[in-house]
Amino acid sequence: MSTALEPHEILRLDGDRVVLLDQRLLPGEIAWVECRKAAEVAEAIRTMVVRGAPAIGIAAAYGYALAARRGEDLAEAARVLAASRPTAVNLAWALAEVAGAADPAAKARQIHDDEVERCRRMGAHGADLLAPGALVLTHCNAGGLATGGYGSAVGMIRAGWERGLVEHVLVDETRPLLQGARLTAFELSELGIPHTVIADSAAASLMARGEVDCVVTGADRIAANGDTANKIGTYSLAVAAAHHGLPLYVVAPTSTIDPDTSDGGGIPIEERDPAEVTERFPARNPAFDVTPAELIEAIVTEEGVHRAPFEQSLPRVVHA
Amino acid sequence: MSTALEPHEILRLDGDRVVLLDQRLLPGEIAWVECRKAAEVAEAIRTMVVRGAPAIGIAAAYGYALAARRGEDLAEAARVLAASRPTAVNLAWALAEVAGAADPAAKARQIHDDEVERCRRMGAHGADLLAPGALVLTHCNAGGLATGGYGSAVGMIRAGWERGLVEHVLVDETRPLLQGARLTAFELSELGIPHTVIADSAAASLMARGEVDCVVTGADRIAANGDTANKIGTYSLAVAAAHHGLPLYVVAPTSTIDPDTSDGGGIPIEERDPAEVTERFPARNPAFDVTPAELIEAIVTEEGVHRAPFEQSLPRVVHA
Repeated sequence: MSTALEPHEILRLDGDRVVLLDQRLLPGEIAWVECRKAAEVAEAIRTMVVRGAPAIGIAAAYGYALAARRGEDLAEAARVLAASRPTAVNLAWALAEVAGAADPAAKARQIHDDEVERCRRMGAHGADLLAPGALVLTHCNAGGLATGGYGSAVGMIRAGWERGLVEHVLVDETRPLLQGARLTAFELSELGIPHTVIADSAAASLMARGEVDCVVTGADRIAANGDTANKIGTYSLAVAAAHHGLPLYVVAPTSTIDPDTSDGGGIPIEERDPAEVTERFPARNPAFDVTPAELIEAIVTEEGVHRAPFEQSLPRVVHA
Repeated sequence: MSTALEPHEILRLDGDRVVLLDQRLLPGEIAWVECRKAAEVAEAIRTMVVRGAPAIGIAAAYGYALAARRGEDLAEAARVLAASRPTAVNLAWALAEVAGAADPAAKARQIHDDEVERCRRMGAHGADLLAPGALVLTHCNAGGLATGGYGSAVGMIRAGWERGLVEHVLVDETRPLLQGARLTAFELSELGIPHTVIADSAAASLMARGEVDCVVTGADRIAANGDTANKIGTYSLAVAAAHHGLPLYVVAPTSTIDPDTSDGGGIPIEERDPAEVTERFPARNPAFDVTPAELIEAIVTEEGVHRAPFEQSLPRVVHA
């Protein structure tokens, strides 16, 4: 196999079901979860059958379309879907898009197609930032699995690889749920892109050894000033990258930008079950952190490469 | 139980056996490994039945004493024990100490007693650095399990707790082998010290949130200029601590200081089996990293608190 999973393999609306690839079982097992009502889609989002900000937006849109098809209470369906996870703004954005549509199913599919197309454009813009021989470090999974196809950060890496610019990718394993070691390594392996998984805590020391040229991540929500919420550990990488004079590139579609949140202080950070870290002793499990705009070299969206001051440079996004 | 494991429970020479608490099984199971010749002790060190720089020095000394008792080839025993792990200098130091002794068994027990006594003195010196209400973050396990009893970094925390200065301890889980989540949390739990385990990658964001006052770690080898090798991830914490204006305190006995290595560039870094990170995809597993002296606020030994320039301030250690 020379390509990663196709968009319809990752998630789709199929008659009276939303079918989601169960990302919790990857890469060991390829299996799908079938949801027959909106609340089941919400539960699948909450339990991370599907994850990644753009992908959960698409899943929520499909869930809403399913509710419409079944004649469920649409206000309630939207409420339950929107509440499934708090940090990504794509959920609210996608639900607003689909709620206003005459044909919610067609609209949901269009959102899915658009997100994948946005990834291709982000990939092309992002690859312009890479020099030949690029040693890229990435965190979590901002690949096709996270975006419904192609990928945001992985899309940039993929486009850079296709242009012959990417030499090697270091993949943070991304504790506690190991999205890097399970999902990003799987996607890069499918794409034939050379990669090495490392413990998250090894990233800074590999920067010090000269084994990283740039850090590329996705985003779960970008505030109006460029402050970016992303998987826990992104902030640690941002601090380390700045210490070593390396650029951090955030790659995310405009659906991830939240114009109504002025800065990172306003982004709700999901605290997940501490048992994901350890069941035996007291633990905490913040799922995301906020990287301040000043540690971000550029934000790449489908509209181009945006640099500080981000208040001026980020695309104007109007959320319904 | 109100105290952590006693020194003789962690490791001891017992007749014709060296008995080691199997730290790989903690905290789920308390079991001991019996070694009947020096090569078996070396294998136990290599496979991390016993780990932590001072503890592996003690274990090697006991292994040498066992070889002497059994009439093994002592030069070969010393060679095999010294080669079991490359980074900690305590191995070479302890072997040189015991090789010159008339009664190797008595000398090995004295090294063990001395290391625990050094920890108590380090704890007292280190606690002087803490202010009331201290929020401490630690990495890996520099507790009694790592030192043969009492602990270095955990010893400082323990002494600070007994003085009423420590409010809470954040414990990095410490991938890939989870010494923090398994061993440090276990020890703090036994000691009744409030603690919370976090993913390693969450540390920097909790610093940004004001939930850390200082970082306290052990060391596997300290170069003459103060550059310090310690568990992978320590350097990442050091960079993050510096970014947030927080002190990093390294707590280690003088047996960890290597006067023959001028700086961190000369410290061999062990690369362990990548399968400890992931078995499915290519991976790398450096077990240690080097934190440059300029990121270390103070090094605490049994002789006191040492500050930059460390070339002048560190105790003069003569390795045989």
